[in-house]
Amino acid sequence: MTKQFTHDDISAMPQRFRANFINSLSGFKSATLLGTTDGTTPNLAVISSVVHIGANPPLLGVIMRPHTVTRDSLSNIKQRGVYTLNHIHFEWVDKAHQTSARYAPDESEFEAVGLTPQFSETFEAPYVKESNIKMGLSVAQHLTLLNNTEMIIGEIQELFISEPLLSEDGYLDIEAAGSACISGLDSYHKTTRLAQFAYAKANTPLTKK
Amino acid sequence: MTKQFTHDDISAMPQRFRANFINSLSGFKSATLLGTTDGTTPNLAVISSVVHIGANPPLLGVIMRPHTVTRDSLSNIKQRGVYTLNHIHFEWVDKAHQTSARYAPDESEFEAVGLTPQFSETFEAPYVKESNIKMGLSVAQHLTLLNNTEMIIGEIQELFISEPLLSEDGYLDIEAAGSACISGLDSYHKTTRLAQFAYAKANTPLTKK
Repeated sequence: MTKQFTHDDISAMPQRFRANFINSLSGFKSATLLGTTDGTTPNLAVISSVVHIGANPPLLGVIMRPHTVTRDSLSNIKQRGVYTLNHIHFEWVDKAHQTSARYAPDESEFEAVGLTPQFSETFEAPYVKESNIKMGLSVAQHLTLLNNTEMIIGEIQELFISEPLLSEDGYLDIEAAGSACISGLDSYHKTTRLAQFAYAKANTPLTKK
Repeated sequence: MTKQFTHDDISAMPQRFRANFINSLSGFKSATLLGTTDGTTPNLAVISSVVHIGANPPLLGVIMRPHTVTRDSLSNIKQRGVYTLNHIHFEWVDKAHQTSARYAPDESEFEAVGLTPQFSETFEAPYVKESNIKMGLSVAQHLTLLNNTEMIIGEIQELFISEPLLSEDGYLDIEAAGSACISGLDSYHKTTRLAQFAYAKANTPLTKK
């Protein structure tokens, strides 16, 4: 029942099939809305490529393709230097996915899909009011990778969370926040906690927190 | 109930608290075992930083810290140029998490935690036999990021999946495969599908697949 695929098998796949397939292989991914602005129109795009880079300073990375539907977001980030990342709640994954449609640059995805832009006093990029966990970032590093995709690393400048989600040890309960996750290009999931483990030590039985 | 944290608030957090906190913010992450070898001892490390880079060629990225418990894995990857990524099944997240304990370089995490190394005919790095989705990769690009973490981008050379998981359109059902996800540093979750959406179009109601 196990099937092997070689490098040649993957190369021979039809383009759309391969895109769905390879995008499934990286496992579950965070479901995030990327908020940007060109100075006039607030822009929103669903992304699934957020990756932790470091805690001190607080850095998150995002992978973006320059010639896809997120090109307006990328252009806004390059132009203004700031953006927001907002967790997608499992009750409105449909609205979040609808941001992946191709809207004109002067059309706001917020309005088109029915989510609310929110601004803080000190930050230009729009937050998603409905999101329980939202962060404002400024560009710290911009890399072009070997396949011409781009990686934006941002430093968190401010963030907003629902306070009861925060544990004494700093863990933020993103499951209780209702944060969704994504597999492949278009499948959305909610989660159920299996266990939270204590620090693992060699030759000592693992314990739960 | 919403609480704002500024950049200064984050800087002032105790180190361990901040590590837990910032690691929770990137959302749900894939739960993956990284298999490597120094030529003698098969090594296994749980990671949560796999990110999709591209489908053609098939590229995945991993973020690694050079001075942490995964330093043996990183050294093996640099030395041998190859590694495996294996999805963690929700039934053995405890074994997977135990690989994060500090074992001696000549001690195999496979044996210590009770998972089985498996080798293909053409690939030097060890796979996890118990995993339903496993990939063999060779290093395609190696970057040092602004905070001295390292990013390894690998090209998939071969992979093994359970064939019934593969849809006609290329989507691989990683939920049916039992793949787990991670939040923060030590919380493991299983998933429940909310919806899989068709391609979104502007001014057209979103439909499910």
